[in-house]
Parts: sequence; C-alpha cells; structure tokens
Amino acid sequence: MKFETGKTYDFGITKLSEEEIIAFAKSYDPLDFHTDINSAMKSRFKGLIASGPHLFNKNYKEKWVPLFGKSVICGLEVSNWKFLKPAYANQEIKTTVTIKHIKENKDKNWAAVTWLFEFKDTQNELVQTLEMKVLHHID
Amino acid sequence: MKFETGKTYDFGITKLSEEEIIAFAKSYDPLDFHTDINSAMKSRFKGLIASGPHLFNKNYKEKWVPLFGKSVICGLEVSNWKFLKPAYANQEIKTTVTIKHIKENKDKNWAAVTWLFEFKDTQNELVQTLEMKVLHHID
Repeated sequence: MKFETGKTYDFGITKLSEEEIIAFAKSYDPLDFHTDINSAMKSRFKGLIASGPHLFNKNYKEKWVPLFGKSVICGLEVSNWKFLKPAYANQEIKTTVTIKHIKENKDKNWAAVTWLFEFKDTQNELVQTLEMKVLHHID
Repeated sequence: MKFETGKTYDFGITKLSEEEIIAFAKSYDPLDFHTDINSAMKSRFKGLIASGPHLFNKNYKEKWVPLFGKSVICGLEVSNWKFLKPAYANQEIKTTVTIKHIKENKDKNWAAVTWLFEFKDTQNELVQTLEMKVLHHID
C-alpha cells in the first residue's frame, strides 16, 4: 500500500434509515432517543437521530476497510471525534476521508497514517469529524 | 443526576470470549486478525485480539448506560482514545471510569461531563484509555 499526505477519498452519500439507526443503537448505544421513535420525537431533536458512532462505523466498515483493511497492522488512536450536528433518519450525509499525516518507518515497511473523516450535510456544514491513526504496512 | 469531579466508578473485570470478539468484529471492524483465528495466529499478535472499540463498547453499553444513560442529552466528543496494548481473547481487563471535568450551565440544568475510561491488564498496565464528553441533565 502507498499513502500520500493530503489525498482525499470521496465516500459519497450515506443515508441511515430508521430501521438501521434503531438496530445499530440497540447493539451499540441503547439510549431511548436512538432506539425509540416516541422518545426521539419528545427529545430536543424532535426526530430520530443516529447514534454518534453510526456514521463513522458504516463508512469505516463498508468503504474504508475494503480499500485499506488488508494493510492494517493495528489501530493506534482515535481523537477529535466531534459530534457537531445531529444526523437524522434518511438525511443525506457526505463523507470524505483525507490523509492528514504520515509517519513512515522505512526499515520496518510500516507507516502511522492519520486519517481525517469529515461528514457534511447538504448545506456543506460539518456534522461530524474524526481523526483515526492506524499503523499500516507500506510497499 | 449529580456529578462530582474526580469520582471514580469501578466497572470490574471484562473478559471477551473468542466468539464475542469475532461476532463484534464481523459487525463493526471486519479485519482478518479480529475475525479469523488462523489469520490472528499468523499476525504479529500471535493470537486473537479484540477490535479496538470492543472493550469500550461493552462497558459503555452494559455498565455506563444503565447508570447514566437516562441523563444524556447528547454526545459531544470522543478524544484521546489510545490503543496501547492488545486485548486478547479471555484476557482479564479491569475498567474504571473517572469524571475528569464538569462544565455546568445551571440556568439550563445541564452539564458537559468529561468521562475518562481506563482499561488495565492484571499487571495494572494501561491497555486502552478514552475520554468521552457528554451533555447531561443535572438536578
């Protein structure tokens, strides 16, 4: 695998259905306003919103792992994962992933790569950001 | 809910079985060395290790949410989630959660609480740490 600082990958649009949001939250984040429509309608959000990790997890699993998973040695750190705006059921969210930093060890053929995930709504406002540092094999 | 800076909650011992590790990784983190015993034995870890988020998720869902979930308004940030040592199948890991910082808004009856999760092995060495900032209702 080769990595290039500043390179951005467009992961396209994610739309989380009510069923997906509820199933994910029951497994991972069982708070009433993520698992129950009535509680969600009565919450300050006045609608069903996705669990914080859901947008990242779906894009990590379905887009990032197929592209980069084979080169992973191990995860190192997740930081600055900011939940800036709620993500509602069926809302269109755009995801991009940018290589923010690379620290190579050429003797060992590995690199610590910092990946910046950005999730934006259709007004181009940030809904969520996250930085994930992963140790990869390099060519 | 009332919160007190510096207060530590002991969440006891977590032991993740091979079956749990594989099932979790298939859903959330499908890398070969988390989902397949043979790949795990051939990896640098020479054994099955849990996906990074697994220890946190199990303790968050099974221990933290039952204690504090009803008071949650929304998540704000996750930071400094450091994967320091691998967690092997059936390894005993001790979890504590400490309230690191509280920022109250008494007019609105809410508080932004920073929770420090620490996961240690039986030699008392840190396996993983994580800081989670959550907005809570307060009394």
